[in-house]
Amino acid sequence: MNEFELIDRLIQSFGSLTSGQGVVVGPGDDAAVLDLPVGEQLVVSTDTLVPDVHFPAESAADLIGFRAIAVSVSDLTAMGAKPLAMTIAVTMPTLDPPWMERLAHGFAVAATEFDIQIAGGNLARGPLNITVTVHGTIATGQALLRSGMQLGDDIWVTGTLGATTVFLANPCCTDSDVEELLPHRDRCAQARYFLPHPRVLFGTSIRELAHAAIDISDGLDSELHHLSRASGYGAEIDLGRLPVWAGLQPSHVAGPDDSYELLFTASSSARQAILKCASDTQTPVVVLGNVVAEPTIEYQLDGKRIHVASGYDHFSSAT
Amino acid sequence: MNEFELIDRLIQSFGSLTSGQGVVVGPGDDAAVLDLPVGEQLVVSTDTLVPDVHFPAESAADLIGFRAIAVSVSDLTAMGAKPLAMTIAVTMPTLDPPWMERLAHGFAVAATEFDIQIAGGNLARGPLNITVTVHGTIATGQALLRSGMQLGDDIWVTGTLGATTVFLANPCCTDSDVEELLPHRDRCAQARYFLPHPRVLFGTSIRELAHAAIDISDGLDSELHHLSRASGYGAEIDLGRLPVWAGLQPSHVAGPDDSYELLFTASSSARQAILKCASDTQTPVVVLGNVVAEPTIEYQLDGKRIHVASGYDHFSSAT
Repeated sequence: MNEFELIDRLIQSFGSLTSGQGVVVGPGDDAAVLDLPVGEQLVVSTDTLVPDVHFPAESAADLIGFRAIAVSVSDLTAMGAKPLAMTIAVTMPTLDPPWMERLAHGFAVAATEFDIQIAGGNLARGPLNITVTVHGTIATGQALLRSGMQLGDDIWVTGTLGATTVFLANPCCTDSDVEELLPHRDRCAQARYFLPHPRVLFGTSIRELAHAAIDISDGLDSELHHLSRASGYGAEIDLGRLPVWAGLQPSHVAGPDDSYELLFTASSSARQAILKCASDTQTPVVVLGNVVAEPTIEYQLDGKRIHVASGYDHFSSAT
Repeated sequence: MNEFELIDRLIQSFGSLTSGQGVVVGPGDDAAVLDLPVGEQLVVSTDTLVPDVHFPAESAADLIGFRAIAVSVSDLTAMGAKPLAMTIAVTMPTLDPPWMERLAHGFAVAATEFDIQIAGGNLARGPLNITVTVHGTIATGQALLRSGMQLGDDIWVTGTLGATTVFLANPCCTDSDVEELLPHRDRCAQARYFLPHPRVLFGTSIRELAHAAIDISDGLDSELHHLSRASGYGAEIDLGRLPVWAGLQPSHVAGPDDSYELLFTASSSARQAILKCASDTQTPVVVLGNVVAEPTIEYQLDGKRIHVASGYDHFSSAT
């Protein structure tokens, strides 16, 4: 099988994921052509995964594929955008059709879950690298920006933090099938590590209630600093309220962590409406603290101020 | 300098390239937000460059940066689309700010030439990989598809083919600055290799004249086969008409070649109008042959039928 035959086979395996829902021209031409709904803006984000930086090299290809899509869709969710379509660029050292087909299966399972089409891609020889560029739509002017954080806002987080920490302490399940792990992602940190759960429906439902949002891709502390820099405000966080995986301390989870949960702020008057959105979309949410005038991030635990390590530095071992 | 500081510095160096012209939210949030003109569709393509596959590893970073943008913009041109904005994902083994700043300079020079904004990106640790996802716009329903080729059409090509062949036989200029090579790209194959010249203005100007288009990223023969598969027709090509770099034979250049020139078809009644577009945009063009009913690709040279080697297989050394 040569490169073009493999690409044809992969496109066939994606079935209806490569057409419809705004995709006018899908994979197979020089570029894809997409229709956007009238009155909507385009939201775009790109993310790369490489082995031993973003996943253990020995991980099953379908788990890698699912994770690659999920971490990119998470950025759309952090803008309040609805997923539309994506392009996927893969480089791999040798043409390995069975591995590639398993990777594509992971793409397809994730694309189906997050309701996002596969509009095109690129396959070339090189060290393994998976770069996904996601496209979503949002009503004009409604994107949730980091700079939108307002003084006095509640600071909310979805889900449970720390799956990466638990997984790295015990990196099991790396050879599982995506179907095996999916039923366990809400209670098994190893499953959650490979199969992040961006809060797509909840994110779009709070679009007119929230003031600012960011996804947790580096760690709570790092994301709070991003919100602070963009808005000019600070945050007071009660770590005792932070939902963490069993066996973890909240102070650890505030540091490096890529849970792909949603951190957002909203007026306290919106609390009931937000809890209703959470209930309607079966999304666990909790208020962690408040936005304050002083542009620093302060943490409390059991009434005492504590210090936490900062977020993940992608080049920390190299600089 | 850490990762975030370097990203801030790169964004600053891009200046006005990161805002305006449809970019409502540029780099620095979870995702970019773009406005599309009313009545236009979005055209999207993604391409990856890795060292020693897509450029010599020792090449100057600004040359790599320019080439990465140009080869992606070339796909927009092949659809007749106008460049709008792009995202750029880079993985590199260690955080090397001077190298990265030179790469970004190449991005900026190309973005300025092709009138495309830099809407966002991603920087992570990993083997060197540059993946560019370009976005363009086109009036609804006007995209030039491969399948649009019609029986009896003229087959046209822009520019001169074979820069890659000349360069690989004598891979010089790899340490030049982009500014040094730019004035020489129309007569020096080495300069043209690093600084491809997608025919952006010409491509949009022939949108309503041409029936089908594809860019030459693998080789003339490979692209003709793509057009044939998509349309069900074939082609008769007179290789004697093929413009090639000095010292090359047309039969070599029909095989593997990534000139990023434009191959397109149009009714012979459109000849004068196409020559006018070419003259207006200072684009060299020539008719190579015709579309025929039999879905095969036939070559003639000096009145004799000849055989040519096929296009580049990205995994040929690995499979």
